[in-house]
Amino acid sequence: MKNSAPAPSALAMVPFVSVENMMRIVNTLGPANVIEKMADYIEADFLRWDQFDKTPRVAAHSREGVIELMPTSDGETYGFKYVNGHPANMARGFQTVTAFGVLARVDNGYPILLSEMTVLTALRTAATSAVAAKHLAPADSRTMAMIGNGAQCEFQALAFQRVIGIDTVRLYDIDPQATRKAARNLAATGLKIIQCGSPEEAVSGAGIITTCTADKQYATILTDNMVGSGVHINAIGGDCPGKTELHRDILLRSDIFVEFPPQTRIEGEIQQLDADHPVTELWQVIANRAEGRKSDRQITLFDSVGFATEDFSALRFIHDQLETTGHFVELDMLADPDDPRDLFGMVKRADVEGLKLTAS
Amino acid sequence: MKNSAPAPSALAMVPFVSVENMMRIVNTLGPANVIEKMADYIEADFLRWDQFDKTPRVAAHSREGVIELMPTSDGETYGFKYVNGHPANMARGFQTVTAFGVLARVDNGYPILLSEMTVLTALRTAATSAVAAKHLAPADSRTMAMIGNGAQCEFQALAFQRVIGIDTVRLYDIDPQATRKAARNLAATGLKIIQCGSPEEAVSGAGIITTCTADKQYATILTDNMVGSGVHINAIGGDCPGKTELHRDILLRSDIFVEFPPQTRIEGEIQQLDADHPVTELWQVIANRAEGRKSDRQITLFDSVGFATEDFSALRFIHDQLETTGHFVELDMLADPDDPRDLFGMVKRADVEGLKLTAS
Repeated sequence: MKNSAPAPSALAMVPFVSVENMMRIVNTLGPANVIEKMADYIEADFLRWDQFDKTPRVAAHSREGVIELMPTSDGETYGFKYVNGHPANMARGFQTVTAFGVLARVDNGYPILLSEMTVLTALRTAATSAVAAKHLAPADSRTMAMIGNGAQCEFQALAFQRVIGIDTVRLYDIDPQATRKAARNLAATGLKIIQCGSPEEAVSGAGIITTCTADKQYATILTDNMVGSGVHINAIGGDCPGKTELHRDILLRSDIFVEFPPQTRIEGEIQQLDADHPVTELWQVIANRAEGRKSDRQITLFDSVGFATEDFSALRFIHDQLETTGHFVELDMLADPDDPRDLFGMVKRADVEGLKLTAS
Repeated sequence: MKNSAPAPSALAMVPFVSVENMMRIVNTLGPANVIEKMADYIEADFLRWDQFDKTPRVAAHSREGVIELMPTSDGETYGFKYVNGHPANMARGFQTVTAFGVLARVDNGYPILLSEMTVLTALRTAATSAVAAKHLAPADSRTMAMIGNGAQCEFQALAFQRVIGIDTVRLYDIDPQATRKAARNLAATGLKIIQCGSPEEAVSGAGIITTCTADKQYATILTDNMVGSGVHINAIGGDCPGKTELHRDILLRSDIFVEFPPQTRIEGEIQQLDADHPVTELWQVIANRAEGRKSDRQITLFDSVGFATEDFSALRFIHDQLETTGHFVELDMLADPDDPRDLFGMVKRADVEGLKLTAS
C-alpha cells in the first residue's frame, strides 16, 4: 500500500524530529554544546520580549493531572507546546511529563516543524536555568547543590558546568537510587560529584541550590534555616497550583525573579505569597532594565515554571539544526491539492491512482 | 542512520494518519459512508454535551490570518485541533485552511492519535451540517442550493445526499471554474447537478440553501428577497470576526441554531445581531430539550462555525478505524526511558548504542 499514490508535494510536508532523531541531534552536537547554544537562543528571545504574544497556558485539569497547550508567536513564527503533567505516571511506568511542539509560519499558517519535546524540554529548562543563573548567581559559584535527582538533574548539572563554570555538584534525593543514577550518568563529565545523605548536607557550601523534585503537594524541600545568605536558588520543581518546594520564609528573605508573572503567580513558589508581592521579570534583568544580583549577602531566587517563549526558542534552535544534521523525516501532514479548491478531487484521484497502481 | 538505535518501546509510539492515509481511509470505506458514520459520532457527542470541557478557541491573529488551537475533553479523552485561516493563501497556491489534530488519554496525558485534519475537517463539517439539517430542514427536502463551490462543496453535497436524501444540487460560484470543478467531481454520485448563473437561480425551488464562500469581509451572498419561507439555511462560510455571508434581515426572519453560543456570537453570522439575540443550541434540539423545526413556513438557520467537539468526534471516528484499515504509521513521538527518571541516561545510551551499531 505504501507507494500506491503519487508522492505529495513539498508544500504538504512537515519536518518531524522524533525522540530518536532528537537524541541523534543531541549526541551529534554534544549535550553541553546543545544546552549552551540553546541558552543563546533563549537569551536572544528574552531580549525581544515585547515582540512576543504572551498567553497563559491553556490547561485541561483532571483528577490525575493536567494537559496543557502553550502557544506563543513573535509575529513571524508561531509555536506551541503540548505537555502533560501526571505525578502518578512514574509509579505506573509512564513519564510524568511528555511533550511535543510545533512551529508554524505566521504569514500562511503552515507548520514548519513538529518535534518531540520530552527530551527538548529538559534541555531548554536546563538552558533557561543557566541563563538566569548567569545574571543572578554569585560570580564565583563553583558548587551547586541538586535536590531532586530525577529526569532533569543531569541536564541541569551540565548546563551549570558549561554556562556558569560549576565544578562540583552535591546530589541529594529522597530515593538514594535516583542519586546513584545521576552520579553514574555524570561520572565522565569532569564534574566532582558528591552523593549526600540529607538536603542539609547537600546545600553545605553550595553557592547555587537547584531544587527539582516531582512531588505534587506543598512539599517543603528547603526550610529557612538551610539557606544561608548570598546563595542563588534555582527552583524548577514547583510548576503547578499546589506544588511548591520552598518554605515561605525563604521566599520572604529572597529577591524573586520570574519568567511571566501572571503564570508564575498561579504555578510558581510565589503562589504562597500575596498576589502583589514584588517580583522582577527575568527578561528585564537580561535587558539591563532591572538589577539582578546587588550584593554578596543577597539571596536570589529564580522561581521557574517554564514559559512558552523558552519552548519557542528551543524549537527555533532545533529547526536551525535540521539542515546541517539531517536528523529528521518529512511527514505528509498537510493536504496540498493542485487546485486548493479541489480537495475532494484530490481525495478521489488518490483512489483512482491508488487502484491503478495496485492493479499494475 | 535509520536503524542505528534500538527500536523505541510501544509506549513511545503514537499512531499518525497522514494525508495519504486519510485519503486511503476515505476511499477504502467510501466518502459517503465515512460522512454518515462520522455524523453518528458527532450526534452521539452532542447528546453528551454536558460531559465536555468547552473552551472558546485560542486564537493568534495576524495581518494575514489566524492560527487557532481548539481543545476539548470528555473527561476520558482529550483532543485538540491546530487550524489556520489565511484568506490570501489561495491566490498564493496554499490552502486557506490546513489543520491537524491530536487525541490523548486524560488519565496519563499520552497522545494516542496524531492526524491530518485538512481533509478530515471538510468531512466533519459536512457531517455536522447533515446532522443539523436532519433536525431542522423540511422533511421532504430533495433539492439543495450550494452557493460557493470551493473545497467544502462536494463533501456537503455527499453528506446531504446520504443523510438527508437530497437528489438535486444547484451549484453557483462567483467563479464558474469552481462550479465546473464541483459538477465534474459530483458527476458519478447519482445526484442531479444543475450549474446556475446566479445565486438567485441557484436558490430557486431549493428547500435547503448551503452557503460556503471563502471571502473575508462582510460579503452578502444571500439577500433577504432571495430567501422564501420554509427553507433551511446551512451557513458554513462565516467563521471569523468580520466574515459573514447573509444579510442581517434574513437573520431577523430566521430561527437560529448554533453550536456553542459564546463562540458563534464572535465568529458566526449572528455577530451582526445584538449580543442577546435569542439562539437555540443545536445539541438541545438533538437531545429533545428544545424544538427544531416547528412549521413549514419557518426559516431555520444553522449558523455553523465549527466547534471543538466536532473535531473530537471526527478524530474519535478515525481512531476507531485504525485497526481495521491499517492506514496509519507509528511515530516515535514520546520519550520512554526504561526508568522514567533516567531521561539523560536514555539519551547517552542511544549514543553509545548508535555508535556501536554504526561501527559494526
